[in-house]
Amino acid sequence: MLHLNLFILGCGHHRAAWRHPASPAERLADIAYYEELARIAERGKFDAVFFADGHSAYDVSDCPFWVLEPLTALAAMARATERIGLVSTISSTFYTPFHAARLLASLDHISGGRAGWNVVTSMYDAEARNHGYASMPDHDWRYRRADEFAQAVLGLWNSWDADALRIDRAGDFADAARVRPLRHQGEHFLVDGPLNSLPLPQRHPVMFQAGASEQGRALAARHAEAIYAVAYDLPAAQAYCRDVRARVRAAGRQAAVPIMPGLVTYVASTDAEARAKQRSLDELLPTETSLQQLGMFTGQDCSGWALDAPVPALPPIGQYHGPQGRYATILRIIEVEQPTVRQLLGRLAAGGGHCTMVGTPEQIADEMERWWREGGADGFNLMPPALPGSIEDFVEQVVPVLQRRGLFRTEYTGRTLREHLGLARPA
Amino acid sequence: MLHLNLFILGCGHHRAAWRHPASPAERLADIAYYEELARIAERGKFDAVFFADGHSAYDVSDCPFWVLEPLTALAAMARATERIGLVSTISSTFYTPFHAARLLASLDHISGGRAGWNVVTSMYDAEARNHGYASMPDHDWRYRRADEFAQAVLGLWNSWDADALRIDRAGDFADAARVRPLRHQGEHFLVDGPLNSLPLPQRHPVMFQAGASEQGRALAARHAEAIYAVAYDLPAAQAYCRDVRARVRAAGRQAAVPIMPGLVTYVASTDAEARAKQRSLDELLPTETSLQQLGMFTGQDCSGWALDAPVPALPPIGQYHGPQGRYATILRIIEVEQPTVRQLLGRLAAGGGHCTMVGTPEQIADEMERWWREGGADGFNLMPPALPGSIEDFVEQVVPVLQRRGLFRTEYTGRTLREHLGLARPA
Repeated sequence: MLHLNLFILGCGHHRAAWRHPASPAERLADIAYYEELARIAERGKFDAVFFADGHSAYDVSDCPFWVLEPLTALAAMARATERIGLVSTISSTFYTPFHAARLLASLDHISGGRAGWNVVTSMYDAEARNHGYASMPDHDWRYRRADEFAQAVLGLWNSWDADALRIDRAGDFADAARVRPLRHQGEHFLVDGPLNSLPLPQRHPVMFQAGASEQGRALAARHAEAIYAVAYDLPAAQAYCRDVRARVRAAGRQAAVPIMPGLVTYVASTDAEARAKQRSLDELLPTETSLQQLGMFTGQDCSGWALDAPVPALPPIGQYHGPQGRYATILRIIEVEQPTVRQLLGRLAAGGGHCTMVGTPEQIADEMERWWREGGADGFNLMPPALPGSIEDFVEQVVPVLQRRGLFRTEYTGRTLREHLGLARPA
Repeated sequence: MLHLNLFILGCGHHRAAWRHPASPAERLADIAYYEELARIAERGKFDAVFFADGHSAYDVSDCPFWVLEPLTALAAMARATERIGLVSTISSTFYTPFHAARLLASLDHISGGRAGWNVVTSMYDAEARNHGYASMPDHDWRYRRADEFAQAVLGLWNSWDADALRIDRAGDFADAARVRPLRHQGEHFLVDGPLNSLPLPQRHPVMFQAGASEQGRALAARHAEAIYAVAYDLPAAQAYCRDVRARVRAAGRQAAVPIMPGLVTYVASTDAEARAKQRSLDELLPTETSLQQLGMFTGQDCSGWALDAPVPALPPIGQYHGPQGRYATILRIIEVEQPTVRQLLGRLAAGGGHCTMVGTPEQIADEMERWWREGGADGFNLMPPALPGSIEDFVEQVVPVLQRRGLFRTEYTGRTLREHLGLARPA
């Protein structure tokens, strides 16, 4: 059975989506817009909605990636939905374990056990300089902190036994012997605990992890219960899955960890119509901003690159110090497709080099099924290029095909995100 | 016109409220319970609901003060209400300005301009040790940090001009010249800004402040737009109001700052019935826990105190290093009422020494009106001893009396918390 998340991002994952006349650009601070998206995904029986997050404003002349803070937005969305999971990105570099454990505990209570967290280490100096760092701490330090962060957060959730409550009106509210301090003291954090919450519906909100670097994979192998992967094509996805599954086993973990690559889809009743949808978004793209973004993704100054010339040679991956997964994908697009700069911009403007599938509902279902059968994916984190249109298209046209093939649920069988993903409740 | 907040705390402000057979003790992690409370207060046309907060679990054998994290809870409650303000306590000692500014901005967007924040500096070592401090930093340091925190948070909200958005689909999303970095660098914080949000509905969520110490009053005078005060009786309230109003003027501020003392009420159709309500809660109080709490409030070991003996002499206020306001009130209760230990416990178990009014709706309205006419209050932060019963009593019985006297609104005239409180929109 496939797992599907809706990855919510601004007006959609295509950077030019907001420029479309029908885009929700005026509604980015309106919680009702996000509630509608969650309801569409719930109508499609998705496992979860997934919120990315960042801690700086980037280039304000372009549409923001995020406007509402995800935990507060998801708390509201929890009350507009009944079954769908609610996954918030959390930066382990900027949050402290107590705040994170508490906010997520609260979301798990508010949603009745539908909370998830996607641990990231953040990357930009502009973000670091909003949180007291003079510049972004280096990659190794961030991943050491992330590991300790995950341990401390899990420890805080474990500080209450599942059966700690008594609510004995003539005696004790909770059994003090079943609520224990954590007394965590590590390189980065001092956290005594216990958490000032009550036992959580899921015990632990489901931990997602993304990250293609060596340290990211190591962190995922130790802690992640589900993985948001980046894979440009099936061979890349298969290689990633093989590697991470081996690491999970090597870490002594028995349970399956669903791997969900990001996926951009353009669906229509004919292949030509689907391609036209894609082209119409690509044509809204302003060249200058796109070249700036390409510069951010490659660590190059791309402002002078000729649009219709082949992409200049890029340094090998070892020399790039930003997020490794996306850079590897760019190198792969260049190698496989030998695109012009303009063509590369078009690919990167939607999903930043994640897999793109364009075609009819049957064609897209075929391709998704192939990834699943051939060990490239346990599901997908859908990155609709334009919201809400692209996710409505997917839910109305692709989901029924997947359901007819027995590849996707026709009804929720569980009430918690953990149940949707087939994950055991932590002991 | 009076202002009224509902101060939400667990099963109510009386420490024994949860022990009543009809208490909501099983629902403390259920967001629907808090939504119901907010709807009751909104039916009563209250200005706001007000959430206290703390960062440790205290004694888990007794009912917790807080279970849900306030910002996530209020985000959900925003969608269950339409007009009422939503005030979250924020610890400036544990939060950083960027997180606080962003979470509150998100709540202001989600609620359509109904967010407020109550800045506290926190007080207990157990809380400090959940957030990386070996022990609680001293009072002066915390208040210096709170002042810088307030400046940085306001600065982040100011980083977007109110008219910064363009949403020009052929051009810019925002006018980059109207979104400015903050570049705050002070003793405690480095925050570059701008905030990754959009201009806020209220521009600034309304800042509440509580705190009776010299530093607390100074902070309130510089920044607070509304004040949650502690006053045992009208003379204490009058003295507090005179002092704080003079400080606000001395700080060069022209606008009125509504002062709202905490108020515990027991209402019934006869005075005897109201007293019986109070007594029935007092009788649920376990002695040992109450003596422990008294120890926390006074810095003494009270465990051996004889219940029916007069309260032993306490050190003068200068020798007590906890929250000054509450301690001063305890000294005053002892001076005025000369209570036994048991009687003092009864007073402190509900509202910790805040003003208590017991009687018929007319009697309570008389007393509230007297405080208001004689310069002791611009409104009240209601601390219902037992929830939801005590606030239902107040809304159904006292509010209509206040409304008939023209002392309280019969309908909301504004849509934002700022409008409810008669506060100008910051320039």
